[in-house]
Amino acid sequence: MPERTTRSDYPVFRNLTTRWMDNDIYGHMNNVVHYSLFDTAVNGWLIEQELLDLKNSATVYLVVETGCKYFAEMAFPDVVTAGIRISKLGKSSIKYHVGLFRNQDENAAAEGFFVHVNVDRTSHKSTPLREAQLKTLKLLIM
Amino acid sequence: MPERTTRSDYPVFRNLTTRWMDNDIYGHMNNVVHYSLFDTAVNGWLIEQELLDLKNSATVYLVVETGCKYFAEMAFPDVVTAGIRISKLGKSSIKYHVGLFRNQDENAAAEGFFVHVNVDRTSHKSTPLREAQLKTLKLLIM
Amino acid sequence: MPERTTRSDYPVFRNLTTRWMDNDIYGHMNNVVHYSLFDTAVNGWLIEQELLDLKNSATVYLVVETGCKYFAEMAFPDVVTAGIRISKLGKSSIKYHVGLFRNQDENAAAEGFFVHVNVDRTSHKSTPLREAQLKTLKLLIM
Amino acid sequence: MPERTTRSDYPVFRNLTTRWMDNDIYGHMNNVVHYSLFDTAVNGWLIEQELLDLKNSATVYLVVETGCKYFAEMAFPDVVTAGIRISKLGKSSIKYHVGLFRNQDENAAAEGFFVHVNVDRTSHKSTPLREAQLKTLKLLIM
Repeated sequence: MPERTTRSDYPVFRNLTTRWMDNDIYGHMNNVVHYSLFDTAVNGWLIEQELLDLKNSATVYLVVETGCKYFAEMAFPDVVTAGIRISKLGKSSIKYHVGLFRNQDENAAAEGFFVHVNVDRTSHKSTPLREAQLKTLKLLIM
Repeated sequence: MPERTTRSDYPVFRNLTTRWMDNDIYGHMNNVVHYSLFDTAVNGWLIEQELLDLKNSATVYLVVETGCKYFAEMAFPDVVTAGIRISKLGKSSIKYHVGLFRNQDENAAAEGFFVHVNVDRTSHKSTPLREAQLKTLKLLIM
Repeated sequence: MPERTTRSDYPVFRNLTTRWMDNDIYGHMNNVVHYSLFDTAVNGWLIEQELLDLKNSATVYLVVETGCKYFAEMAFPDVVTAGIRISKLGKSSIKYHVGLFRNQDENAAAEGFFVHVNVDRTSHKSTPLREAQLKTLKLLIM
Repeated sequence: MPERTTRSDYPVFRNLTTRWMDNDIYGHMNNVVHYSLFDTAVNGWLIEQELLDLKNSATVYLVVETGCKYFAEMAFPDVVTAGIRISKLGKSSIKYHVGLFRNQDENAAAEGFFVHVNVDRTSHKSTPLREAQLKTLKLLIM
């Protein structure tokens, strides 16, 4: 097993609730749900930081690559805390890492990454990150 | 439009978070997601009250009928409070009503019902509610 | 139990596949998934009939009420056939009924309804159905 | 962009339908849905080959790592063909690769992998793959 991150490896956190449907036939959170939590944590933070406006921002973020390692089972009705950090800021791309922590656990139950590309809302063409975006995104580099 | 319930119409509440994927192409919570929130609110309460044990209880609850009226749009990243009440307790069935409240709103954005039947975990045959179940469930009649 | 419909009660059908995640902890299709199949069947038919264009049509359809009765269990990897009929066409609203048939079964495993309101894409205000819409929708009245 | 696989890179295929809810606010299949399709394709094949029985097999498969690269957008109502191959068979683990092909496209719209570990159904402890499992799984090595 690879080394698992802990809460101290992440600069910001988001609180998420699990749902009945998250549990699959094996009685634990289905592996697909973790990606829904990554998406929710990162986009929730972006909206709160005013780096994304669902209806009006000229640019939005599309996902080009994702991945996840599963270390321990989680299940509804657990609550999940998602830690977010950024490892790499490109000209128009951002690599996020998200750790999912079950209830009060200190070690991540799962760790994922995903790569956002900043694109024009209409054409979906990649667009350089603006200075204001970079300034805020840098707060998550760790 | 039918009359909408308010928070004072429900005896207990559950706090739920929305997810990025809940928003459909129209930018609001897809009508299907509301049912996932109903299931989550009611089963979460049942587990907390020790009326359901995901792995061990001899009886579980299966859904035989559901319905929902949608009054106002909700969307990620809204937070949702679910109010729960029971309108009818049968020999082996329970009719729940769930109101979904967007952020700080006093009027329900959507109201649903669903009917649980108490069944044997293995055979899925309906089974009379036990005294202990009835006693706790009656707390939600309103 | 209310009387269940059969395939002969529906004028058109859509073929749908189930997914691993559809099965919940009880090993059968979670009650929420049925609504996702209703939405998929009806909107798929509307797109095919050119009554809905996801990106360009001036009006779209919002759901204001839904409901479902569950008669028999379905589960991944079942295939599902959805039968669609319309029971009521209002000035700007449509009431659909959808029967879900498991594999080769003649009797519906579940029956739902949902009510679409024709709305302006931007304002989400209800808008009368156009003659071309009514003409095609009438084909499903049964 | 990395090199994309084509249909000829996969030995077996599964046909999958998309759903209304798969489209997110950007009008295309949300990145999470791809993982649901991987799970569905692989487990569907395992069930068909009698290498998994949802209710009765002594061992089941748990996912320990997944990943996906997204090359092109897909959207409801597209149909998706999933190509499956195996790149690595361990003592108790299997590494699958799944290519998702949009409608009649020859190049994959997305490519994922996921790693299954063969575990005891009750204890969730890893268990060596049996001869019968290995024999069938080898058919997908490519």
